[in-house]
Amino acid sequence: MSRKFLRSYKEAYDYSYTSGAYATIEMIKVKPDIVRAVYIHSRYAGKKDIDALCRTMGIPMLHDDRAFERINQKENSYVLGVFSKYFCELMPNRPHIVMVNPSDMGNLGTVIRTMAGLNMLDLAVVTPAADILHPKTIRASMGALFHIRFQCFSSFDAYKDAFPDHVYFPFTPEGKIPLSRDNCPHAPLFSLLFGNEAAGLPVQCKTAGTGVKIPQSALVDSLNLSIAAGIGMFIFADKHGLI
Amino acid sequence: MSRKFLRSYKEAYDYSYTSGAYATIEMIKVKPDIVRAVYIHSRYAGKKDIDALCRTMGIPMLHDDRAFERINQKENSYVLGVFSKYFCELMPNRPHIVMVNPSDMGNLGTVIRTMAGLNMLDLAVVTPAADILHPKTIRASMGALFHIRFQCFSSFDAYKDAFPDHVYFPFTPEGKIPLSRDNCPHAPLFSLLFGNEAAGLPVQCKTAGTGVKIPQSALVDSLNLSIAAGIGMFIFADKHGLI
Repeated sequence: MSRKFLRSYKEAYDYSYTSGAYATIEMIKVKPDIVRAVYIHSRYAGKKDIDALCRTMGIPMLHDDRAFERINQKENSYVLGVFSKYFCELMPNRPHIVMVNPSDMGNLGTVIRTMAGLNMLDLAVVTPAADILHPKTIRASMGALFHIRFQCFSSFDAYKDAFPDHVYFPFTPEGKIPLSRDNCPHAPLFSLLFGNEAAGLPVQCKTAGTGVKIPQSALVDSLNLSIAAGIGMFIFADKHGLI
Repeated sequence: MSRKFLRSYKEAYDYSYTSGAYATIEMIKVKPDIVRAVYIHSRYAGKKDIDALCRTMGIPMLHDDRAFERINQKENSYVLGVFSKYFCELMPNRPHIVMVNPSDMGNLGTVIRTMAGLNMLDLAVVTPAADILHPKTIRASMGALFHIRFQCFSSFDAYKDAFPDHVYFPFTPEGKIPLSRDNCPHAPLFSLLFGNEAAGLPVQCKTAGTGVKIPQSALVDSLNLSIAAGIGMFIFADKHGLI
Protein backbone atom coordinates (compact mmCIF):
# COMPACT_ATOMS: atom_id res chain seq x y z
CA MET A 1 0.00 0.00 0.00
CA SER A 2 2.73 2.43 0.96
CA ARG A 3 4.53 2.60 -2.41
CA LYS A 4 1.33 3.26 -4.27
CA PHE A 5 0.95 6.78 -2.88
CA LEU A 6 4.51 7.96 -3.04
CA ARG A 7 3.91 10.65 -5.63
CA SER A 8 3.22 14.35 -5.41
CA TYR A 9 -0.31 15.40 -6.24
CA LYS A 10 -1.72 15.57 -9.73
CA GLU A 11 -5.24 16.63 -10.68
CA ALA A 12 -5.68 13.47 -12.78
CA TYR A 13 -5.23 11.14 -9.78
CA ASP A 14 -8.28 9.69 -8.12
CA TYR A 15 -6.84 10.53 -4.71
CA SER A 16 -5.51 13.60 -2.93
CA TYR A 17 -3.83 14.54 0.34
CA THR A 18 -4.50 16.47 3.48
CA SER A 19 -1.36 18.02 4.89
CA GLY A 20 -0.93 18.61 8.61
CA ALA A 21 -2.56 17.08 11.65
CA TYR A 22 -5.44 19.54 11.91
CA ALA A 23 -6.91 19.02 8.43
CA THR A 24 -6.22 15.28 8.58
CA ILE A 25 -8.05 14.87 11.88
CA GLU A 26 -10.97 16.97 10.58
CA MET A 27 -11.22 14.67 7.59
CA ILE A 28 -11.08 11.48 9.64
CA LYS A 29 -13.79 12.74 11.96
CA VAL A 30 -16.12 14.11 9.27
CA LYS A 31 -15.54 11.80 6.32
CA PRO A 32 -13.91 8.58 7.57
CA ASP A 33 -15.13 6.63 4.53
CA ILE A 34 -12.92 8.47 2.06
CA VAL A 35 -9.66 8.06 4.01
CA ARG A 36 -7.30 5.50 2.49
CA ALA A 37 -4.31 5.89 4.77
CA VAL A 38 -2.50 8.28 7.07
CA TYR A 39 1.26 8.86 6.94
CA ILE A 40 2.89 9.84 10.20
CA HIS A 41 6.45 11.14 10.30
CA SER A 42 8.79 9.72 12.92
CA ARG A 43 9.37 13.25 14.21
CA TYR A 44 5.66 13.95 14.79
CA ALA A 45 4.98 14.69 18.45
CA GLY A 46 1.22 14.09 18.71
CA LYS A 47 1.45 10.52 17.45
CA LYS A 48 -0.67 8.92 20.16
CA ASP A 49 -3.89 10.87 19.52
CA ILE A 50 -3.94 10.32 15.81
CA ASP A 51 -2.88 6.72 16.34
CA ALA A 52 -5.89 6.08 18.54
CA LEU A 53 -8.22 7.82 16.10
CA CYS A 54 -6.95 5.80 13.13
CA ARG A 55 -7.27 2.55 15.07
CA THR A 56 -10.86 3.33 16.07
CA MET A 57 -11.74 4.13 12.49
CA GLY A 58 -9.81 1.23 11.00
CA ILE A 59 -7.57 3.49 8.94
CA PRO A 60 -4.09 2.17 8.02
CA MET A 61 -1.20 4.21 9.42
CA LEU A 62 1.99 4.29 7.42
CA HIS A 63 5.42 5.20 8.70
CA ASP A 64 7.64 6.18 5.81
CA ASP A 65 9.53 9.43 6.33
CA ARG A 66 10.70 9.52 2.73
CA ALA A 67 7.11 9.77 1.54
CA PHE A 68 6.95 13.26 3.05
CA GLU A 69 9.85 14.47 0.97
CA ARG A 70 8.27 13.31 -2.24
CA ILE A 71 4.66 14.24 -1.64
CA ASN A 72 5.02 17.33 0.46
CA GLN A 73 6.14 19.99 -1.94
CA LYS A 74 7.47 22.91 0.05
CA GLU A 75 5.22 22.19 2.99
CA ASN A 76 6.51 21.25 6.38
CA SER A 77 4.05 18.85 7.87
CA TYR A 78 4.44 15.60 9.70
CA VAL A 79 1.00 14.18 9.01
CA LEU A 80 -0.45 13.40 5.59
CA GLY A 81 -3.87 11.90 4.91
CA VAL A 82 -4.49 10.08 1.66
CA PHE A 83 -8.11 10.15 0.53
CA SER A 84 -10.24 9.08 -2.42
CA LYS A 85 -11.62 11.99 -4.38
CA TYR A 86 -15.37 12.33 -3.99
CA PHE A 87 -18.29 14.33 -5.28
CA CYS A 88 -21.22 16.02 -3.58
CA GLU A 89 -24.58 17.41 -4.56
CA LEU A 90 -25.68 20.82 -3.42
CA MET A 91 -28.77 21.13 -1.26
CA PRO A 92 -31.49 22.77 -3.37
CA ASN A 93 -33.12 24.46 -0.39
CA ARG A 94 -30.05 26.14 1.07
CA PRO A 95 -28.18 29.34 0.18
CA HIS A 96 -25.36 28.82 -2.31
CA ILE A 97 -22.00 30.43 -2.87
CA VAL A 98 -21.10 30.41 -6.57
CA MET A 99 -17.44 30.93 -7.45
CA VAL A 100 -17.06 31.60 -11.17
CA ASN A 101 -13.59 30.70 -12.47
CA PRO A 102 -11.59 31.31 -9.28
CA SER A 103 -7.92 30.87 -10.17
CA ASP A 104 -6.13 30.94 -6.84
CA MET A 105 -6.24 27.88 -4.57
CA GLY A 106 -5.50 30.00 -1.52
CA ASN A 107 -8.52 32.20 -2.20
CA LEU A 108 -10.76 29.20 -2.91
CA GLY A 109 -9.68 27.44 0.28
CA THR A 110 -10.10 30.61 2.34
CA VAL A 111 -13.62 31.12 0.97
CA ILE A 112 -14.46 27.52 1.95
CA ARG A 113 -13.18 28.11 5.49
CA THR A 114 -15.30 31.27 5.74
CA MET A 115 -18.36 29.45 4.38
CA ALA A 116 -18.08 26.77 7.05
CA GLY A 117 -17.63 29.48 9.68
CA LEU A 118 -20.79 31.26 8.54
CA ASN A 119 -22.98 28.18 8.05
CA MET A 120 -23.17 28.60 4.30
CA LEU A 121 -22.39 25.06 3.32
CA ASP A 122 -23.09 24.76 -0.40
CA LEU A 123 -20.49 25.80 -2.96
CA ALA A 124 -20.87 25.78 -6.74
CA VAL A 125 -17.64 26.17 -8.70
CA VAL A 126 -17.89 27.15 -12.35
CA THR A 127 -14.93 25.76 -14.27
CA PRO A 128 -12.26 26.39 -15.45
CA ALA A 129 -11.25 26.96 -11.87
CA ALA A 130 -8.62 26.22 -9.26
CA ASP A 131 -8.67 22.54 -8.26
CA ILE A 132 -10.93 22.26 -5.23
CA LEU A 133 -9.40 18.94 -4.14
CA HIS A 134 -5.78 20.08 -4.48
CA PRO A 135 -3.82 19.77 -1.21
CA LYS A 136 -3.16 23.53 -1.29
CA THR A 137 -6.87 24.35 -1.44
CA ILE A 138 -7.55 21.95 1.42
CA ARG A 139 -4.73 23.45 3.43
CA ALA A 140 -6.04 26.99 2.91
CA SER A 141 -9.48 25.75 3.99
CA MET A 142 -7.92 24.34 7.19
CA GLY A 143 -9.86 21.16 6.57
CA ALA A 144 -13.19 23.01 6.31
CA LEU A 145 -13.60 21.50 2.82
CA PHE A 146 -14.87 18.34 4.50
CA HIS A 147 -17.68 20.27 6.17
CA ILE A 148 -19.20 21.72 3.02
CA ARG A 149 -20.91 20.38 -0.09
CA PHE A 150 -19.37 21.35 -3.42
CA GLN A 151 -20.26 20.75 -7.02
CA CYS A 152 -18.48 21.78 -10.23
CA PHE A 153 -20.35 23.13 -13.26
CA SER A 154 -18.92 23.57 -16.73
CA SER A 155 -20.79 26.86 -17.19
CA PHE A 156 -22.89 29.30 -15.22
CA ASP A 157 -25.89 28.31 -17.34
CA ALA A 158 -25.47 24.70 -16.22
CA TYR A 159 -25.65 25.92 -12.62
CA LYS A 160 -28.68 28.11 -13.36
CA ASP A 161 -30.52 25.23 -15.01
CA ALA A 162 -29.91 23.08 -11.95
CA PHE A 163 -31.01 25.75 -9.46
CA PRO A 164 -33.53 28.05 -11.13
CA ASP A 165 -35.32 28.93 -7.89
CA HIS A 166 -32.43 30.72 -6.22
CA VAL A 167 -32.31 34.51 -6.37
CA TYR A 168 -28.89 35.41 -7.76
CA PHE A 169 -26.82 38.25 -6.36
CA PRO A 170 -23.76 38.93 -8.53
CA PHE A 171 -21.01 40.80 -6.66
CA THR A 172 -19.56 43.37 -9.02
CA PRO A 173 -18.14 46.91 -8.79
CA GLU A 174 -21.02 48.07 -11.02
CA GLY A 175 -23.65 46.60 -8.67
CA LYS A 176 -26.82 48.64 -8.07
CA ILE A 177 -27.00 47.76 -4.39
CA PRO A 178 -24.22 49.20 -2.23
CA LEU A 179 -23.95 46.64 0.56
CA SER A 180 -23.98 48.01 4.10
CA ARG A 181 -25.19 47.19 7.58
CA ASP A 182 -28.56 48.73 6.76
CA ASN A 183 -28.76 47.70 3.16
CA CYS A 184 -28.70 43.98 2.51
CA PRO A 185 -31.25 42.33 0.24
CA HIS A 186 -33.36 39.52 1.63
CA ALA A 187 -34.48 36.44 -0.29
CA PRO A 188 -35.82 33.12 0.97
CA LEU A 189 -33.31 31.28 -1.21
CA PHE A 190 -30.24 33.03 -2.60
CA SER A 191 -26.94 32.50 -4.43
CA LEU A 192 -24.02 34.88 -4.02
CA LEU A 193 -21.93 35.06 -7.19
CA PHE A 194 -18.22 35.93 -7.14
CA GLY A 195 -15.97 36.18 -10.20
CA ASN A 196 -12.36 35.57 -11.12
CA GLU A 197 -9.56 37.48 -9.30
CA ALA A 198 -8.55 39.45 -12.39
CA ALA A 199 -11.52 39.35 -14.75
CA GLY A 200 -14.43 39.54 -12.30
CA LEU A 201 -17.79 38.07 -13.31
CA PRO A 202 -18.71 37.41 -16.95
CA VAL A 203 -21.63 39.39 -18.37
CA GLN A 204 -24.18 36.57 -18.17
CA CYS A 205 -23.59 36.39 -14.42
CA LYS A 206 -23.77 40.15 -13.91
CA THR A 207 -27.18 40.23 -15.57
CA ALA A 208 -28.55 37.15 -13.82
CA GLY A 209 -29.75 39.20 -10.87
CA THR A 210 -29.44 42.52 -9.06
CA GLY A 211 -25.79 43.41 -8.69
CA VAL A 212 -24.31 44.04 -5.27
CA LYS A 213 -21.21 46.13 -4.70
CA ILE A 214 -19.07 46.51 -1.63
CA PRO A 215 -18.45 50.23 -1.10
CA GLN A 216 -14.75 50.98 -1.24
CA SER A 217 -12.30 53.81 -1.73
CA ALA A 218 -10.61 54.71 -5.01
CA LEU A 219 -7.24 53.85 -3.45
CA VAL A 220 -7.52 50.22 -4.51
CA ASP A 221 -8.59 48.62 -7.73
CA SER A 222 -10.64 46.09 -5.77
CA LEU A 223 -10.60 44.10 -2.58
CA ASN A 224 -8.98 40.67 -2.53
CA LEU A 225 -11.50 38.06 -3.75
CA SER A 226 -11.64 36.11 -0.49
CA ILE A 227 -12.06 39.36 1.49
CA ALA A 228 -14.89 40.61 -0.74
CA ALA A 229 -16.56 37.21 -0.46
CA GLY A 230 -16.00 37.16 3.30
CA ILE A 231 -17.63 40.57 3.80
CA GLY A 232 -20.52 39.75 1.46
CA MET A 233 -21.16 36.37 3.04
CA PHE A 234 -21.03 37.79 6.56
CA ILE A 235 -23.61 40.49 5.87
CA PHE A 236 -25.93 38.02 4.10
CA ALA A 237 -25.44 35.35 6.78
CA ASP A 238 -26.27 37.88 9.49
CA LYS A 239 -29.29 39.23 7.59
CA HIS A 240 -30.66 35.72 7.03
CA GLY A 241 -30.07 34.48 10.57
CA LEU A 242 -27.47 31.88 9.62
CA ILE A 243 -25.06 32.84 12.40
CA MET B 1 23.87 51.21 -10.24
CA SER B 2 22.53 48.02 -11.73
CA ARG B 3 24.91 45.57 -10.02
CA LYS B 4 24.23 47.03 -6.63
CA PHE B 5 20.68 45.65 -6.45
CA LEU B 6 21.24 42.21 -7.90
CA ARG B 7 20.41 40.34 -4.74
CA SER B 8 17.28 38.72 -3.45
CA TYR B 9 15.60 40.52 -0.58
CA LYS B 10 16.82 40.48 3.00
CA GLU B 11 15.21 42.22 5.96
CA ALA B 12 18.56 43.79 6.90
CA TYR B 13 18.86 45.71 3.62
CA ASP B 14 17.90 49.37 3.51
CA TYR B 15 15.97 48.77 0.28
CA SER B 16 13.21 46.47 -0.91
CA TYR B 17 11.36 45.62 -4.11
CA THR B 18 7.95 45.91 -5.66
CA SER B 19 7.22 43.05 -7.99
CA GLY B 20 4.93 43.44 -10.99
CA ALA B 21 3.83 46.47 -12.97
CA TYR B 22 0.74 47.28 -10.89
CA ALA B 23 2.47 47.68 -7.52
CA THR B 24 5.45 49.39 -9.10
CA ILE B 25 3.29 51.99 -10.84
CA GLU B 26 1.31 52.55 -7.63
CA MET B 27 4.56 53.22 -5.81
CA ILE B 28 5.91 55.61 -8.46
CA LYS B 29 2.68 57.59 -8.44
CA VAL B 30 2.23 57.74 -4.68
CA LYS B 31 5.79 57.81 -3.34
CA PRO B 32 8.15 58.85 -6.16
CA ASP B 33 10.78 60.02 -3.69
CA ILE B 34 11.57 56.55 -2.38
CA VAL B 35 12.05 54.91 -5.79
CA ARG B 36 15.70 54.20 -6.63
CA ALA B 37 15.30 52.38 -9.93
CA VAL B 38 12.93 50.26 -11.99
CA TYR B 39 13.98 47.06 -13.74
CA ILE B 40 12.09 46.20 -16.90
CA HIS B 41 12.40 42.78 -18.51
CA SER B 42 12.94 42.62 -22.25
CA ARG B 43 9.80 40.49 -22.54
CA TYR B 44 7.57 43.04 -20.79
CA ALA B 45 4.77 44.18 -23.09
CA GLY B 46 3.66 47.45 -21.46
CA LYS B 47 7.10 49.01 -21.63
CA LYS B 48 6.04 52.35 -23.10
CA ASP B 49 3.71 53.43 -20.29
CA ILE B 50 6.13 52.72 -17.51
CA ASP B 51 8.94 54.20 -19.58
CA ALA B 52 7.07 57.48 -19.87
CA LEU B 53 6.22 57.48 -16.16
CA CYS B 54 9.82 56.87 -15.13
CA ARG B 55 11.09 59.58 -17.45
CA THR B 56 8.60 62.11 -16.08
CA MET B 57 9.61 61.26 -12.52
CA GLY B 58 13.34 61.10 -13.27
CA ILE B 59 13.61 57.47 -12.17
CA PRO B 60 16.39 55.35 -13.71
CA MET B 61 15.21 52.39 -15.76
CA LEU B 62 17.42 49.34 -15.88
CA HIS B 63 17.35 46.60 -18.48
CA ASP B 64 19.00 43.49 -17.09
CA ASP B 65 17.00 40.31 -17.55
CA ARG B 66 19.30 38.31 -15.31
CA ALA B 67 18.42 40.54 -12.38
CA PHE B 68 14.92 39.04 -12.43
CA GLU B 69 16.22 35.51 -12.00
CA ARG B 70 18.23 36.46 -8.96
CA ILE B 71 15.83 38.79 -7.22
CA ASN B 72 12.51 37.32 -8.16
CA GLN B 73 12.23 34.23 -6.07
CA LYS B 74 9.45 32.07 -7.48
CA GLU B 75 7.58 35.07 -8.81
CA ASN B 76 6.93 35.65 -12.46
CA SER B 77 7.01 39.35 -13.00
CA TYR B 78 8.62 41.50 -15.64
CA VAL B 79 8.77 44.72 -13.65
CA LEU B 80 10.67 45.29 -10.42
CA GLY B 81 10.86 48.54 -8.49
CA VAL B 82 13.76 49.14 -6.12
CA PHE B 83 12.95 51.49 -3.27
CA SER B 84 14.54 52.86 -0.11
CA LYS B 85 12.89 51.62 3.03
CA TYR B 86 11.02 54.34 4.85
CA PHE B 87 9.10 54.99 8.02
CA CYS B 88 5.81 56.71 8.77
CA GLU B 89 4.02 58.13 11.76
CA LEU B 90 0.43 57.27 12.47
CA MET B 91 -2.15 60.06 12.52
CA PRO B 92 -3.28 60.51 16.14
CA ASN B 93 -6.78 61.63 15.16
CA ARG B 94 -7.67 58.75 12.85
CA PRO B 95 -8.87 55.19 13.49
CA HIS B 96 -6.07 52.64 13.77
CA ILE B 97 -5.70 49.00 12.90
CA VAL B 98 -3.36 47.24 15.31
CA MET B 99 -1.88 43.93 14.20
CA VAL B 100 -0.24 42.16 17.12
CA ASN B 101 2.45 39.69 16.00
CA PRO B 102 1.02 38.76 12.60
CA SER B 103 3.24 36.00 11.20
CA ASP B 104 2.06 35.59 7.61
CA MET B 105 3.10 38.14 5.00
CA GLY B 106 0.13 37.22 2.81
CA ASN B 107 -2.29 38.00 5.63
CA LEU B 108 -0.51 41.25 6.52
CA GLY B 109 -0.51 42.41 2.89
CA THR B 110 -4.15 41.46 2.43
CA VAL B 111 -5.13 43.41 5.55
CA ILE B 112 -3.26 46.44 4.18
CA ARG B 113 -5.14 46.18 0.88
CA THR B 114 -8.44 45.98 2.75
CA MET B 115 -7.51 48.96 4.93
CA ALA B 116 -6.82 51.13 1.88
CA GLY B 117 -10.09 49.95 0.34
CA LEU B 118 -12.02 50.94 3.48
CA ASN B 119 -10.28 54.27 4.15
CA MET B 120 -8.63 53.05 7.32
CA LEU B 121 -5.16 54.27 6.63
CA ASP B 122 -3.19 53.88 9.85
CA LEU B 123 -1.60 50.55 10.78
CA ALA B 124 0.32 49.75 13.96
CA VAL B 125 2.30 46.51 13.88
CA VAL B 126 3.42 45.06 17.18
CA THR B 127 6.64 43.08 16.69
CA PRO B 128 7.82 40.36 16.39
CA ALA B 129 5.83 40.30 13.17
CA ALA B 130 5.96 39.53 9.48
CA ASP B 131 8.18 42.03 7.64
CA ILE B 132 5.88 44.78 6.38
CA LEU B 133 8.38 45.92 3.71
CA HIS B 134 9.07 42.41 2.38
CA PRO B 135 8.29 42.09 -1.36
CA LYS B 136 5.74 39.35 -0.53
CA THR B 137 3.80 41.61 1.82
CA ILE B 138 3.82 44.38 -0.77
CA ARG B 139 2.66 41.97 -3.45
CA ALA B 140 -0.21 40.71 -1.28
CA SER B 141 -1.17 44.34 -0.65
CA MET B 142 -1.23 44.94 -4.43
CA GLY B 143 0.77 48.09 -3.82
CA ALA B 144 -1.75 49.43 -1.28
CA LEU B 145 1.11 49.61 1.23
CA PHE B 146 2.10 52.92 -0.33
CA HIS B 147 -1.31 54.40 0.44
CA ILE B 148 -1.27 53.75 4.17
CA ARG B 149 0.76 54.92 7.14
CA PHE B 150 2.41 52.21 9.23
CA GLN B 151 4.46 52.18 12.39
CA CYS B 152 6.09 49.29 14.26
CA PHE B 153 6.02 49.02 18.04
CA SER B 154 8.10 46.66 20.13
CA SER B 155 5.18 46.00 22.48
CA PHE B 156 1.48 46.71 22.79
CA ASP B 157 2.24 48.93 25.77
CA ALA B 158 4.50 51.07 23.59
CA TYR B 159 1.57 51.55 21.20
CA LYS B 160 -0.81 52.32 24.08
CA ASP B 161 1.55 54.91 25.52
CA ALA B 162 1.73 56.63 22.15
CA PHE B 163 -2.03 56.62 21.56
CA PRO B 164 -3.82 56.68 24.92
CA ASP B 165 -6.91 58.44 23.58
CA HIS B 166 -8.06 55.70 21.22
CA VAL B 167 -10.79 53.34 22.41
CA TYR B 168 -9.41 49.83 21.93
CA PHE B 169 -11.52 46.99 20.54
CA PRO B 170 -9.70 43.67 20.80
CA PHE B 171 -11.08 41.03 18.41
CA THR B 172 -11.20 37.73 20.23
CA PRO B 173 -13.43 34.64 20.34
CA GLU B 174 -14.21 35.48 23.99
CA GLY B 175 -15.35 39.00 23.13
CA LYS B 176 -18.41 40.36 24.97
CA ILE B 177 -19.82 42.10 21.89
CA PRO B 178 -21.01 39.79 19.11
CA LEU B 179 -20.49 41.92 16.01
CA SER B 180 -23.44 42.16 13.65
CA ARG B 181 -25.16 44.59 11.32
CA ASP B 182 -27.14 45.97 14.23
CA ASN B 183 -24.50 45.69 16.87
CA CYS B 184 -21.33 47.63 16.26
CA PRO B 185 -19.83 49.85 18.93
CA HIS B 186 -19.27 53.52 18.14
CA ALA B 187 -16.33 55.60 19.34
CA PRO B 188 -15.02 58.93 18.09
CA LEU B 189 -11.52 57.49 17.92
CA PHE B 190 -10.91 53.75 17.88
CA SER B 191 -8.28 51.05 17.40
CA LEU B 192 -9.19 47.56 16.18
CA LEU B 193 -6.83 44.95 17.63
CA PHE B 194 -6.10 41.66 15.84
CA GLY B 195 -3.80 38.92 17.11
CA ASN B 196 -1.47 36.30 15.71
CA GLU B 197 -2.83 33.60 13.35
CA ALA B 198 -2.26 30.77 15.82
CA ALA B 199 -2.04 32.37 19.25
CA GLY B 200 -4.61 35.17 18.94
CA LEU B 201 -4.22 38.26 21.11
CA PRO B 202 -2.12 38.27 24.29
CA VAL B 203 -3.93 38.90 27.58
CA GLN B 204 -2.88 42.55 27.94
CA CYS B 205 -4.55 43.30 24.61
CA LYS B 206 -7.72 41.37 25.42
CA THR B 207 -8.17 43.38 28.60
CA ALA B 208 -7.31 46.75 27.03
CA GLY B 209 -10.92 47.31 25.96
CA THR B 210 -14.27 45.64 25.35
CA GLY B 211 -13.76 42.48 23.35
CA VAL B 212 -15.51 42.02 20.04
CA LYS B 213 -16.23 38.61 18.55
CA ILE B 214 -17.35 37.68 15.08
CA PRO B 215 -20.21 35.17 15.42
CA GLN B 216 -19.29 31.89 13.76
CA SER B 217 -20.24 28.24 13.64
CA ALA B 218 -18.51 25.49 15.57
CA LEU B 219 -17.42 23.90 12.28
CA VAL B 220 -14.23 25.94 12.22
CA ASP B 221 -11.68 26.73 14.86
CA SER B 222 -11.61 30.35 13.67
CA LEU B 223 -11.82 32.43 10.54
CA ASN B 224 -8.66 33.26 8.61
CA LEU B 225 -7.00 36.33 10.18
CA SER B 226 -7.34 38.54 7.10
CA ILE B 227 -11.00 37.53 6.72
CA ALA B 228 -11.82 38.26 10.37
CA ALA B 229 -10.04 41.61 10.07
CA GLY B 230 -11.83 42.33 6.78
CA ILE B 231 -15.27 41.69 8.28
CA GLY B 232 -14.49 43.66 11.43
CA MET B 233 -13.05 46.60 9.53
CA PHE B 234 -15.95 46.70 7.09
CA ILE B 235 -18.59 46.85 9.82
CA PHE B 236 -16.66 49.52 11.74
CA ALA B 237 -15.92 51.53 8.58
CA ASP B 238 -19.60 51.46 7.64
CA LYS B 239 -20.73 52.36 11.15
CA HIS B 240 -18.32 55.31 11.30
CA GLY B 241 -19.06 56.63 7.83
CA LEU B 242 -15.61 55.94 6.42
CA ILE B 243 -16.91 54.37 3.21
